[in-house]
Amino acid sequence: MAERESNVVLGLDPDPSRLWPEAVDAVQWLRAAPKARESGVALDVAAELLGEPGRPGATRRLAAAAVAAHCALVIDAVAPAVVAVKLQVACFERLGGAGWRALRAVAGRAREAGLLVLADAKRGDIDVTAKAYGQGLFGGLDTPFGAVRGLGADAATYAPYMGRDTIEAVLGEARAAGGGLFVLVRTSNPGAADLEDRRLADGGAVWEAVAEMVHGLGVPGPDSGLHDVGAVVGATVPEHLARARELLPRAPFLLPGVGAQGGRVEDLAPAFAPGRAAGLVTASRSIVRAHEQAGGEPAGAARAEAERLRATAWALA
Amino acid sequence: MAERESNVVLGLDPDPSRLWPEAVDAVQWLRAAPKARESGVALDVAAELLGEPGRPGATRRLAAAAVAAHCALVIDAVAPAVVAVKLQVACFERLGGAGWRALRAVAGRAREAGLLVLADAKRGDIDVTAKAYGQGLFGGLDTPFGAVRGLGADAATYAPYMGRDTIEAVLGEARAAGGGLFVLVRTSNPGAADLEDRRLADGGAVWEAVAEMVHGLGVPGPDSGLHDVGAVVGATVPEHLARARELLPRAPFLLPGVGAQGGRVEDLAPAFAPGRAAGLVTASRSIVRAHEQAGGEPAGAARAEAERLRATAWALA
Repeated sequence: MAERESNVVLGLDPDPSRLWPEAVDAVQWLRAAPKARESGVALDVAAELLGEPGRPGATRRLAAAAVAAHCALVIDAVAPAVVAVKLQVACFERLGGAGWRALRAVAGRAREAGLLVLADAKRGDIDVTAKAYGQGLFGGLDTPFGAVRGLGADAATYAPYMGRDTIEAVLGEARAAGGGLFVLVRTSNPGAADLEDRRLADGGAVWEAVAEMVHGLGVPGPDSGLHDVGAVVGATVPEHLARARELLPRAPFLLPGVGAQGGRVEDLAPAFAPGRAAGLVTASRSIVRAHEQAGGEPAGAARAEAERLRATAWALA
Repeated sequence: MAERESNVVLGLDPDPSRLWPEAVDAVQWLRAAPKARESGVALDVAAELLGEPGRPGATRRLAAAAVAAHCALVIDAVAPAVVAVKLQVACFERLGGAGWRALRAVAGRAREAGLLVLADAKRGDIDVTAKAYGQGLFGGLDTPFGAVRGLGADAATYAPYMGRDTIEAVLGEARAAGGGLFVLVRTSNPGAADLEDRRLADGGAVWEAVAEMVHGLGVPGPDSGLHDVGAVVGATVPEHLARARELLPRAPFLLPGVGAQGGRVEDLAPAFAPGRAAGLVTASRSIVRAHEQAGGEPAGAARAEAERLRATAWALA
């Protein structure tokens, strides 16, 4: 973050119907002329995913290749202004096995660009199952058939409803791979009021009880002093940020909701109280679809919007 | 359920290190003699998944093929005694894209055996993302590249922490495909006490507030009168079952925790108050690993244990 002077996380939640035209064109071109795949378009990721057109699942592979190409193009355009990608797992998973291969390919591309990889998966389950999710998202597992690599994420989002033991089980896998978690604390959607904001009999809101649980799970890193268990706190609820920071003095905050969901980066100052690295500002559609507002070609508009956000957030922090 | 006189759901949470030997043998045999793939072993599912040994991800495909073969064998052994499979998505997902293909293959095998398919996914996210999860688990989505089929589940488990709007978004996809949801209400793990059991300022526990939200979301079916939004209520906490039934008079209950987690089917009577179809008793390891206790070959032991559980639960309901 210090090197890049950036707190910004690029959110990638690709919709096959709203990809950058260059990605769609490249995949159609690869499909028409498979022999020319080595010819220098920056889309080897897509070529690897396409496979043979006749086999079952060809539509899924085509859509997944286009999604991967799109994400690779966005990463290439935006990487210098951001520190991480937040991959919305749902958007890949809906394309089945090919979608998971695209997810892996995009994670690899992000790493090549020097970015951290956050898997926005919001999983949550009992011990043995949480461990399985952790194996998939982080380091993998050994099997009698050989070692199976995981996604290699640096962090993943996780849901707290089922309690502390369900977080600890996935945290073990995260830590073994040098990674961490961002637990949902106070989310950015209107429905967060239904449960997260309910008052508890012994004081505070449900989300504050979760914050206390999250604080108790974290272990500080050697340099930053920041915990390896962070919190998702919506940028749409700046009124809760200061309180969340009181309860979580050492947790990195992942702050979604800037841009399309209405959050303003100017309201996020409390997140940065423990230091610049304590607040990660996530923006997805406002960067990827910046050209729809600003005009021009997608890559330039995305880069400009990411850079604007970087400068604003860094000045604030 | 009436036809089979069964309330039992077969849980499949395959661990590549603890598969039935017959599945491992079959995959090794397929690998050694790929040309013989058509020869009548009930494992075409595995053959389809294996692919070419040299390509990247060959270990994942081998493990996924063995997992799929194992699940197919368990389904074939147990199907007459059960009404549905509950597929633990984590256990497939940790094998990446090949794992998702195995998940799809196992769901297909279950449908061929006349079983309903429950995707135990415990997802949960904001509107547009919840919709994407729903597309993946239920009916799929249209893309400019063609229609992409979803998993085709009949129901999926879902997490309530983020509130009502996050459930409604996935429910739309479920209903469009003729399916439903089971929302986590009071889970079977010890950590459920951390948040789910906390008392609210205006009375009741957090899980009871979730139960009320779930009740408000359901729509009754034409024949049974049961809602299309059910509840996950752990079989390990029979003391909460009667209260859950009060709050959710029309919700089907998915009741995990019998067997390996210590729940007893004899304690589940309140779940069946609205009728036999209102309680689904889930058992995973106690069926699949029955031979480790009972001896004999895995298929026979699994069938006997599933039949024992079926008879006990049906007599109770």
